[in-house]
Amino acid sequence: MSEYAGYEGNSLEFLKKNTISVGDSVKILADITYSGIVMPRYEHSDDRHIVLKLKSGYNIGLEIAKIEKVEKILTSEKIVEKNEKVEKNEKLPNILLLSTGGTIASKIDYRTGAVTPVLTAEELNSSVPELAEIANIDTKVLFSEYSENIMPQHWLKIAETVKEYSNSEYSGIIIAHGTDTMHYTSSYLSFSLAGFPIPIALVGSQRSSDRASSDAALNLMGAVSFLTKCKGNGVYIIMHQDENDEAIACHIGTRVRKNHTSKRGAFQTIGDDPAFLIVNNEIHDNMKTEFFTIKEFDPKIKINEKVALVKYHPGYNPELLKNIIDSGYKAIIFEGTGLGHIGENMYPIVKIANEKGIFMGMTSQCIDGRVRMTVYESGRDLLNLGIIPLENMIPEVALVKAMWAAGNTEKRDEIKEIMLKKIASEFSI
Amino acid sequence: MSEYAGYEGNSLEFLKKNTISVGDSVKILADITYSGIVMPRYEHSDDRHIVLKLKSGYNIGLEIAKIEKVEKILTSEKIVEKNEKVEKNEKLPNILLLSTGGTIASKIDYRTGAVTPVLTAEELNSSVPELAEIANIDTKVLFSEYSENIMPQHWLKIAETVKEYSNSEYSGIIIAHGTDTMHYTSSYLSFSLAGFPIPIALVGSQRSSDRASSDAALNLMGAVSFLTKCKGNGVYIIMHQDENDEAIACHIGTRVRKNHTSKRGAFQTIGDDPAFLIVNNEIHDNMKTEFFTIKEFDPKIKINEKVALVKYHPGYNPELLKNIIDSGYKAIIFEGTGLGHIGENMYPIVKIANEKGIFMGMTSQCIDGRVRMTVYESGRDLLNLGIIPLENMIPEVALVKAMWAAGNTEKRDEIKEIMLKKIASEFSI
Repeated sequence: MSEYAGYEGNSLEFLKKNTISVGDSVKILADITYSGIVMPRYEHSDDRHIVLKLKSGYNIGLEIAKIEKVEKILTSEKIVEKNEKVEKNEKLPNILLLSTGGTIASKIDYRTGAVTPVLTAEELNSSVPELAEIANIDTKVLFSEYSENIMPQHWLKIAETVKEYSNSEYSGIIIAHGTDTMHYTSSYLSFSLAGFPIPIALVGSQRSSDRASSDAALNLMGAVSFLTKCKGNGVYIIMHQDENDEAIACHIGTRVRKNHTSKRGAFQTIGDDPAFLIVNNEIHDNMKTEFFTIKEFDPKIKINEKVALVKYHPGYNPELLKNIIDSGYKAIIFEGTGLGHIGENMYPIVKIANEKGIFMGMTSQCIDGRVRMTVYESGRDLLNLGIIPLENMIPEVALVKAMWAAGNTEKRDEIKEIMLKKIASEFSI
Repeated sequence: MSEYAGYEGNSLEFLKKNTISVGDSVKILADITYSGIVMPRYEHSDDRHIVLKLKSGYNIGLEIAKIEKVEKILTSEKIVEKNEKVEKNEKLPNILLLSTGGTIASKIDYRTGAVTPVLTAEELNSSVPELAEIANIDTKVLFSEYSENIMPQHWLKIAETVKEYSNSEYSGIIIAHGTDTMHYTSSYLSFSLAGFPIPIALVGSQRSSDRASSDAALNLMGAVSFLTKCKGNGVYIIMHQDENDEAIACHIGTRVRKNHTSKRGAFQTIGDDPAFLIVNNEIHDNMKTEFFTIKEFDPKIKINEKVALVKYHPGYNPELLKNIIDSGYKAIIFEGTGLGHIGENMYPIVKIANEKGIFMGMTSQCIDGRVRMTVYESGRDLLNLGIIPLENMIPEVALVKAMWAAGNTEKRDEIKEIMLKKIASEFSI
């Protein structure tokens, strides 16, 4: 990457004229005075703005036409040198931050231009200095994956790592994670680490930290604030509540979905408000019950990936279900229509699955609302064919829970029992 | 069914004491005076209420403890005799109502207790007398299926029937349809009947008409009101806007989903307000563009069911995709994560699909928001593997469109061209 990474046309000319490079610390006078670090831009950005990372960690785009004066404070090399080892403050609570990759854990190396998803305590504190004022943060890099590449094997690694801290001095654990599959991971941790004594917060960002309006810093600050003040336990996803920066939402990790591809407030609790809102460093509590049904920590870090999610639709060929059965799957979660239905043309193959002892659970592609299979004759038929209605469990959560249940037992009756027993707020009754 | 169908305990005793049977027309004095027909109840109903269908078609549950007086007006046999052939009013617009089954087209036969999904003009007008005041309604029963049993072959039958009325005197066509797969059917009609000159409204109900708070009558009245006043054309789904009875929502048939299993306002336009709201018989217009891109009616009633919807998730076994390829599928719609991603472990099989000339399109399981595959390296990899991003098309709509496209051409390039060409408001650009 050049020292003008991503800048083109007018904005490139502006940087050159002022002998400013990406990574320099600058003071800019426009409508008000801004102090921060010049960030690189992506290809296809416009050429009318430069992006500045402010000391708060928040990025803004400044229109060059409105800039009156630019003053270079430090060059990028000096900034790197200035990063010193953070001293622990014994009076503050301790937080453990585990990094798994994703946008939030990415950092542009100003010299090479590569995105390095390795987050150290020093880098973190230098990008979000407010964190050091409310907590001591220890960090550990578990791996570095975009979340679409997170596999059940990664869930196991995260769970095994977290398990070790059940008796630690930490007030809570943050898991920096890509947003795409964050709700699958939060579900797995919720089941496998049932009863874990301190709160766990998965935190991501929808916009990378080298972009104007990145949500990374505020989501992290919200999570640290929540974990240091939270009285209970549980597994949560902490992200922007909406497009504004006023409220950070804390969602129950088994009741949340990514419901928008790009908005900062993409995550939504299904069928309810978020469990907590973090507004101006204060926690607003909407949590109705304990997160875990059990009181004692009882880790069961197992998995069986031979579980299929079958989304039924008009034209779905029952032969595809037959293939799944023939491939030795142990459980099938249907994403049925409406109250929990699949077409009559599926019945013969469902009958085979039932005879083979495969667990079959029903959820709804409506996503919100409860399945009810006693209202219509077709639902009753499916009950008779051995399909178990899974209350208002979100399809993806039911899938993860079934993988976990099938990892703990091979017996269908026991899988059924686990699926219908509330463990981590995954359904309401 | 007995003459007290579904009534138990206190409510059964109440009916017997007053010599009232299900199906009788009664006048009841409680807080105010109610006139209507006593409806049957389902098993597991409470025994404290009786359900009355009012003349407006709306059902209410009356608490027997609060009933002061009951007066029988007509017995059920007399009501049946009273249904007379409806006379056409030459001054009113004409509407065609096609019935395909589902809750809305169901009617309890008071004598046999069977649910008969056959709707005649006379039965319709007797249950919703207001309809006769705003339009002449001709009806035709196409078939009678719960919507989870609607198959692509049913779509063809509906489209072939509707096609015949492109030059008729009707102001619009209502299709009474089960709600579970209504948005799949509306999508198919939108593509196959592109340019159809008069508006088409799919109407369903979330609660059957023999239940208190059935939404059937109000949804039908909203649809008739809309079709007689609508200036444009298009295919819509018309249902309650929310739990209240104030507003009926009219959704673009390719931008709508059933997002709740049981609520009356279960249908939602994705990422926008409904195209129209019908409030107090007035139409509030939120339609931003013409529904169809083409002006002339150009029916293409074809389908190829060899299209798969693949919902990617952590632990999805690429071998399942391999099975789909080996089964001779012509197109695959991915329901990817976030901005349109699938795991790296899928790449080798995606490569095989690409080499075999199978069309692959990307949508997002986030449902709302646009796929963007140029933001991250993994998205770019998928573009290079031949996967086509499908803008902000809803996964189910993309599936139906691909079935339709593959029915019209076997050539991948032509399928791609059709998928990326806006036909019926299926994506925004």
